Amino acid sequence: MPDFHATPIFPQGFRCASRNVGLKPSAKDLTLFASDVDCAAAAVFTRNHFPGAPILLGRETIRGGVLRAVIANSKVSNVATGEEGVARARRMAQAAATELGTSADRILVSSTGVIGVPLPIEKIEGGVIGMAGELQRDPLVGAEGIMTTDTHPKALSLSVGDATITWVAKGSGMIEPNMATMLCYVFTDAALDAATLDALLRDAVDASFNQLTVDGDTSTSDTCAILANGLAGDVPLDEFRAALLAGCLRITEILARDGEGATRLLRVGVRGAASVREARIIAKAIANSPLIKTMVHGADPNVGRILMAIGKCIDCTIRPDATDAWVNGFQVVRGGARLAFDDAVVRTALATEVVDLDVVLGVGDGEARAFGCDLTKGYIDENAAYYSS
Amino acid sequence: MPDFHATPIFPQGFRCASRNVGLKPSAKDLTLFASDVDCAAAAVFTRNHFPGAPILLGRETIRGGVLRAVIANSKVSNVATGEEGVARARRMAQAAATELGTSADRILVSSTGVIGVPLPIEKIEGGVIGMAGELQRDPLVGAEGIMTTDTHPKALSLSVGDATITWVAKGSGMIEPNMATMLCYVFTDAALDAATLDALLRDAVDASFNQLTVDGDTSTSDTCAILANGLAGDVPLDEFRAALLAGCLRITEILARDGEGATRLLRVGVRGAASVREARIIAKAIANSPLIKTMVHGADPNVGRILMAIGKCIDCTIRPDATDAWVNGFQVVRGGARLAFDDAVVRTALATEVVDLDVVLGVGDGEARAFGCDLTKGYIDENAAYYSS
Repeated sequence: MPDFHATPIFPQGFRCASRNVGLKPSAKDLTLFASDVDCAAAAVFTRNHFPGAPILLGRETIRGGVLRAVIANSKVSNVATGEEGVARARRMAQAAATELGTSADRILVSSTGVIGVPLPIEKIEGGVIGMAGELQRDPLVGAEGIMTTDTHPKALSLSVGDATITWVAKGSGMIEPNMATMLCYVFTDAALDAATLDALLRDAVDASFNQLTVDGDTSTSDTCAILANGLAGDVPLDEFRAALLAGCLRITEILARDGEGATRLLRVGVRGAASVREARIIAKAIANSPLIKTMVHGADPNVGRILMAIGKCIDCTIRPDATDAWVNGFQVVRGGARLAFDDAVVRTALATEVVDLDVVLGVGDGEARAFGCDLTKGYIDENAAYYSS
Repeated sequence: MPDFHATPIFPQGFRCASRNVGLKPSAKDLTLFASDVDCAAAAVFTRNHFPGAPILLGRETIRGGVLRAVIANSKVSNVATGEEGVARARRMAQAAATELGTSADRILVSSTGVIGVPLPIEKIEGGVIGMAGELQRDPLVGAEGIMTTDTHPKALSLSVGDATITWVAKGSGMIEPNMATMLCYVFTDAALDAATLDALLRDAVDASFNQLTVDGDTSTSDTCAILANGLAGDVPLDEFRAALLAGCLRITEILARDGEGATRLLRVGVRGAASVREARIIAKAIANSPLIKTMVHGADPNVGRILMAIGKCIDCTIRPDATDAWVNGFQVVRGGARLAFDDAVVRTALATEVVDLDVVLGVGDGEARAFGCDLTKGYIDENAAYYSS
């Protein structure tokens, strides 16, 4: 595991700014990330059938493989807004391009927040004016402007040789990404071409964000993009690949721990599955189960639920008599049967901020991990009045 | 829709009794349902890979197509209990057979409750003695003995010609049945053979219990059985089929409304899908979405979430510009875009005990319904300490 910087920094040539432009009452709601020079770039987007207008535009923009900047707003997601929504996403790209002195086809646009509400584009067009003069080097400043129900801004960085990789992300609810998570931007000064970035990003996302679930609901705005401006020159590809994956995994854990209402990070490991695909399905079924999530919340030693969650994956190969399970390293299931144990010991084992559930299936060599959180009353509070608050 | 009896009654020749035998502190925990004569019978069971011992035994028992009685306990599910669990399920069948003067292969056994705890079989063997003398004609008495987190006993009956059909069910959490729901017994005095019953039951279950979801978690104990003792003679098959489906749908609604912590019944109708299969997938995705369920709980007019839930069914055919949606008859989405509406109107439309979400996809002729409930703090309370309470 590479060492992340104690305080996240940007790679050479990247800066950001964020402002309140009136979408939220007072918190920051608009962020601009910019490189001094054009970047090779790749991105993955949600597979939801109702992608937001920024996704429709982003798929078009990323085809060129070149980006200079990202503009992203919170509070309103510009989803389910029809043709007018796409027109407003284009106006948002143009506003950022004008401010930065580049062209709109080099601007990636993201919007996150309530679905189905018109984007207040005039506030964004007016609000972005002057932001080029405020660009600065702290990635957390940019992270602030894209928060919705997140309880803290999320950024991370590490070094790969002379280069730096920096992640800025947001996400808390409506999270079971399918191709990418809510919003995550990866910036690097390593020199890599767009095709290489695309392949590296897809692999890293498959093992990290696509194994993340807060509530099983796939957002219409999921976007993960990587921008490489090359200012640090070449880096060893294997080292870059490992670092990219490590950072994506760590951001995945950070997003899971900050899931809406969450008090615990849930990590599920599955080994011995028939294939990686089946291991991923089973790991996510466990991480997604409301009964597992409430068990983790209450540190209730109701570990039979682990078998229930494995067993409901009816299209996977399971050998009940070969199935073992552990809670934070303490074995609770052997050969498909719950072991006799002291409830107090398992209760104590469960009562930690990070809960690891590990399963060995004894079927094949497939391994996977999934990342989630507990299910609490805080989730209900946040989502029974999200639109109205 | 046939008329259900104001107070549920049993068909001719069926009776039941229930007792507390010490599995729970004082509430009833053991039920015996018996026919005066042998019944043609069919049953469907959970497809979970970790079926409880009673399911393993039940699959063997139902092969004969003949049942005289059902014995069912609550509090302990006898799941994940290995060979010893199956031996105890057999002892439970034998205890009921001895009490009723029949053979163990005519007894269907069910257990529901905590997973992975040994079944206190001595309490059941001792407790069943004398129950034959307590058999009486009120199906709600039997329903009481199989309750877990249910807030009320569940039974229903209707007439088909000279015959009667009676449903007795339980279920509140760990509900996304796959072949049947938690526990539901259907009794009739109509004369039907086992093969016909099997076909009728599978069709009815597919359209009702298999479209029910409280939390997306498939129980290891799901069982739905039908027993026909023939005492009322032949009935028109079409009439029986329609009545069986109507009762299964109504029980499904009753189970959904009594979902753990639920305050509202959520009914989702999908029309215009590419196929019935896709309609069922989409209807269940909506009924299962935590963000839809919390929206319904809070009567929050965050109806863009309906599109999110449709859109996350990535393997289904969706035409965004042909997608419409209604909340309790009030149109909120047209052509994949949220309509401009007065929030207060939608909030009022949502604030009913029964919430109907209807979706028209404009793709094909597939139709389906799904049944669920809202997600509340009560669900968290019940499941963060289920084992311990």
